[in-house]
Amino acid sequence: MSVQKVLEALADPARRTVVRTLAHSGADLSCGSFELPVGRSTSSHHFSVLREAGVLRQYYVGTTKMNALRSEELERRFPGLLTAVVAAADAEAGQARGV
Amino acid sequence: MSVQKVLEALADPARRTVVRTLAHSGADLSCGSFELPVGRSTSSHHFSVLREAGVLRQYYVGTTKMNALRSEELERRFPGLLTAVVAAADAEAGQARGV
Repeated sequence: MSVQKVLEALADPARRTVVRTLAHSGADLSCGSFELPVGRSTSSHHFSVLREAGVLRQYYVGTTKMNALRSEELERRFPGLLTAVVAAADAEAGQARGV
Repeated sequence: MSVQKVLEALADPARRTVVRTLAHSGADLSCGSFELPVGRSTSSHHFSVLREAGVLRQYYVGTTKMNALRSEELERRFPGLLTAVVAAADAEAGQARGV
């Protein structure tokens, strides 16, 4: 897990949506459960980038691909980073909704 | 100041070197005082990206361009983000040196 890869992964609004949704859900989520404003293949790419950076882990339940945020590993490796980015993304999403 | 621009600015090792050097110096530094493994024009580009993202402020003292980290603005806008990235970059630099 490198800070370079993690920051690159987080430097995209759709990927931050995935991360904050997982952070707030407190549970693993299937790829289909995210509301991303992109097509299926772009969406699939975003999940791959996040997985390859070590931000999330993917596994299958039957034929459903599930996503788990690697919060603990990230916190151990880069203390405070995930929390700060999720908070920043939350603020950003709030502003976009005019909250 | 957008989280997207700030993360893009920080998703580069040379730019993280600038940021952590400024964070640890506690003082503003001239562009020439950073040891970056890149040429003059690339270096100049990196400072522009950081300035345009709002990560640093630049001003002249005579003919010397100075750089000031906008720590307080960043902390207000994205609490904990700069601290976490500097810590991650420190850890990364330590590993690169074999510390």
